[in-house]
Amino acid sequence: MDISQLGEFGLIERLAQLLGPGPSRLLVGIGDDAAVWEMDGQFLLLTTDTLMEEVHFLPHLHPWPDVGWKALAVNVSDIMAMGGVPEVALVSLALPPHADIAHVEAMYEGLRQCAATYDVAVAGGDVVRGERTSVSVAIVGRALLREGRPSLLRRDGAKPGHVVAVSGPLGDSAGGLRLLMAGIYPDHPLAQAHLRPRPPLSLGQAAAQRGIPCAIDVSDGLLQDLAQICRQSKVSITVWAHHIPISPHLREAFPQDALMLACTGGEDYSLVLIGPEEELAGLKGVASQLTIIGQVAEGEGVRLLDQEGRDITPPILGWDHLRPP
Amino acid sequence: MDISQLGEFGLIERLAQLLGPGPSRLLVGIGDDAAVWEMDGQFLLLTTDTLMEEVHFLPHLHPWPDVGWKALAVNVSDIMAMGGVPEVALVSLALPPHADIAHVEAMYEGLRQCAATYDVAVAGGDVVRGERTSVSVAIVGRALLREGRPSLLRRDGAKPGHVVAVSGPLGDSAGGLRLLMAGIYPDHPLAQAHLRPRPPLSLGQAAAQRGIPCAIDVSDGLLQDLAQICRQSKVSITVWAHHIPISPHLREAFPQDALMLACTGGEDYSLVLIGPEEELAGLKGVASQLTIIGQVAEGEGVRLLDQEGRDITPPILGWDHLRPP
Repeated sequence: MDISQLGEFGLIERLAQLLGPGPSRLLVGIGDDAAVWEMDGQFLLLTTDTLMEEVHFLPHLHPWPDVGWKALAVNVSDIMAMGGVPEVALVSLALPPHADIAHVEAMYEGLRQCAATYDVAVAGGDVVRGERTSVSVAIVGRALLREGRPSLLRRDGAKPGHVVAVSGPLGDSAGGLRLLMAGIYPDHPLAQAHLRPRPPLSLGQAAAQRGIPCAIDVSDGLLQDLAQICRQSKVSITVWAHHIPISPHLREAFPQDALMLACTGGEDYSLVLIGPEEELAGLKGVASQLTIIGQVAEGEGVRLLDQEGRDITPPILGWDHLRPP
Repeated sequence: MDISQLGEFGLIERLAQLLGPGPSRLLVGIGDDAAVWEMDGQFLLLTTDTLMEEVHFLPHLHPWPDVGWKALAVNVSDIMAMGGVPEVALVSLALPPHADIAHVEAMYEGLRQCAATYDVAVAGGDVVRGERTSVSVAIVGRALLREGRPSLLRRDGAKPGHVVAVSGPLGDSAGGLRLLMAGIYPDHPLAQAHLRPRPPLSLGQAAAQRGIPCAIDVSDGLLQDLAQICRQSKVSITVWAHHIPISPHLREAFPQDALMLACTGGEDYSLVLIGPEEELAGLKGVASQLTIIGQVAEGEGVRLLDQEGRDITPPILGWDHLRPP
């Protein structure tokens, strides 16, 4: 059987089974936004993400500094989705033998800007020869502590009765990619949302400090990411389409498709928080745009309802990294 | 200018300059076998290494379980070369859409075996679509402590008067690759040295505990790796060819080339230790095969001398990851 039949999540599940549960110091292993590793009373958060040329970026559309920014930002986003503090990153570059040094330096300059913005140290890495350019970043952070225990936002923390909130408008990144592909200049606000995602790191930390139990970042598409929560928390989630925040830019550029882009587009690196409504309301001071878009119930799977309560769930919920193009 | 003109070390130097020195918690940044990051009195060791199909392995020559083993082992080797304890690893896989799940599982099984051998937890990772298979492993370990300070083997710790020792025979891995390319079965001892390197982790830790100041693992070729030490320690190193340990297997398989393979072949993941002779002698109890092969002096660069004292340094010292094939 080939991996495209199994899909990304099927493959990860099989590999996790093969590895087994790991030692007790591994509090959280494969399957959450980041792994959690205990070290002398500290709880390290570990995650890695790769941007691959032709898959995640196209050199003629994505300026090199933005590729560097995003390579780090997507990892910061994973630490945010655990409620933690990113600290230090490693960078693994694959480069074609005739890559232009100016492009590599431009990519690193963007990465450095992102590192400065989120106070992450870049500690080193590895350079190898490859057919295509790729950038793998691994990041180490730490969990916030509450009475000596790590305060974590988990994918398996959703419970019936909880509500689902998002940190800001969705779909801008997917809209931005469409504009870039249509030749629209990269300084359009939607293009910027795609090229320079800014995960709301401090909101994740505030949520963890308040004891919010569940979160995920919007990377593969809202509905796909919520389907992950459903699987891991063993719940169902209903999303109200008319409550999903959509930016005026997106509505203007794509009046027909704005909702679909917001639901399945991905790469917004916004934060989805799930917990008791009164607890989430308490975060409004930190995140004025925090918007409740759905609720958790018993059952399984995610569904999208329109204003009249009709089920408008699309057949493809988002991005699977192993689905053939 | 393209990166193949600059070379791997030239590129890394330029990227390191672009990033700047980093915060004070980054005790060791780009350029050593692993970075060192302070976290509440602990000193994390961080390193990453990638194995790329067609560059580091060929699917028709390298069995998948061995690719998995090696992907982790080369990272364990970097932690060994700092004198530390590897703890937890992340795995970033790139896979072609029609990769066979059985191959991916076989690779993970080899990785799991290596993790069990070296007591490393595999905490998670990332899967993306790629043209070719590649495996990036990032590993987090910790430094041993002496009176609250990290006890580290450094690349810049060599001083005139020190001697250079290696932990075991060199060149077996390069010889093994030649045999595999000639169609010799993978259970030949040289092929096994290539496919399943076993970095002597506990020797690195014993050396750090004894205060040995300098080490590197043999990954790119003995002379190339020693040239790194020369650059970073601002010293010269003389290696006596007739003292380099060479296995009977290698002598038998490649009587003409054994010395050249041992000096420039790389991928042995043996440990080179550099320090005062009497301190290194004290490690003989831990490593019976530890062999003194050279000495450190003022000056710069590495040279290889034969038994009559003639300079027989080859023009290419080892492997540069950005040199075109």
